[in-house]
Amino acid sequence: MAHVTIIGTGTMGQAISSIVTQGGNTVEHIGHTDTDQPVTGDIVVLAVPFPAISEIVADRGEQLAGKVVVDITNPLNFETFDSLVTPADGSATADLAAALPQSRVLKAFNTNFAATLASGAVGGVPTTVLIAGDDAEAKSLLADVVSAGGLRAVDAGALSRARELEALGFLQLTLAVGEKVSWTGGFAVAS
Amino acid sequence: MAHVTIIGTGTMGQAISSIVTQGGNTVEHIGHTDTDQPVTGDIVVLAVPFPAISEIVADRGEQLAGKVVVDITNPLNFETFDSLVTPADGSATADLAAALPQSRVLKAFNTNFAATLASGAVGGVPTTVLIAGDDAEAKSLLADVVSAGGLRAVDAGALSRARELEALGFLQLTLAVGEKVSWTGGFAVAS
Repeated sequence: MAHVTIIGTGTMGQAISSIVTQGGNTVEHIGHTDTDQPVTGDIVVLAVPFPAISEIVADRGEQLAGKVVVDITNPLNFETFDSLVTPADGSATADLAAALPQSRVLKAFNTNFAATLASGAVGGVPTTVLIAGDDAEAKSLLADVVSAGGLRAVDAGALSRARELEALGFLQLTLAVGEKVSWTGGFAVAS
Repeated sequence: MAHVTIIGTGTMGQAISSIVTQGGNTVEHIGHTDTDQPVTGDIVVLAVPFPAISEIVADRGEQLAGKVVVDITNPLNFETFDSLVTPADGSATADLAAALPQSRVLKAFNTNFAATLASGAVGGVPTTVLIAGDDAEAKSLLADVVSAGGLRAVDAGALSRARELEALGFLQLTLAVGEKVSWTGGFAVAS
């Protein structure tokens, strides 16, 4: 059984929490400003907006050593909604991995709208969580939690693929804000 | 009625040709090495592998002035299958638009596998052609051809979004080659 800490109590944190518990795994849910509460999970999901990531690294970097750390962010420039704030040849997850060299950093959930995590489907296609990272065992641990919770998990490749996952998340957000897709739809992954 | 020239006779060229004719529009189909044959279409789809784009620009740049030119390429490094060959902060389509300043350049079809253009569905979701470009009328002309042919067309934004469309196309190709999705599946766009 996996024990998962979720930092962040917004809609994504709540949706991921439900998946974890539906799969019979345990959740510790921490608000991202509750810096006094230590993390006890083996998998730690940072379900916070991108700007809060640097605070978590500063506050909890040492606590996260050895743990599987899951970055779900889409680092958009929300003023222009026309670009990401990360370097064009990198990703938020690559930066996080560099900041947490003792952690096993993964990208996941950033291509899933919260409603599709709850409903289990995107346009009738089972909701798929794309997971990227360089640690195969870490990806497998997270994939097991996702699968146990009733969703599909797909290994999207190395940590370097986080760049493409963030591009996909960015594009999907622009389509939703532009009312080209709904917040209950978006990109499905058809096997 | 639109008259569409398709340069390139591979599976993508054939699939796009079928969509055009199914919608009651006309197609002129030209092999990309048939440089003596002038293009007569108002919309010109460059259904060729990325390396052939520069040849077409050299051979036909002047002929393409004033026309809607559709770039469908995914500029992968096919040796490593681990990156694109275009600059990280740009796209193949942006480069093409710079090389053809008199043309109305669009990105489209690069996120569609040929089989899903033919079947009309991805995992049961209607196949959606994502179109990016800076010329709203050009996007509308292409969208009308796509819609008449029985597929969904979605305006994915400005030409700068071609970068994210190419990231999506790249990711989708890596998933198919890695047998995470089939060549009849991939990313669906659920409204």
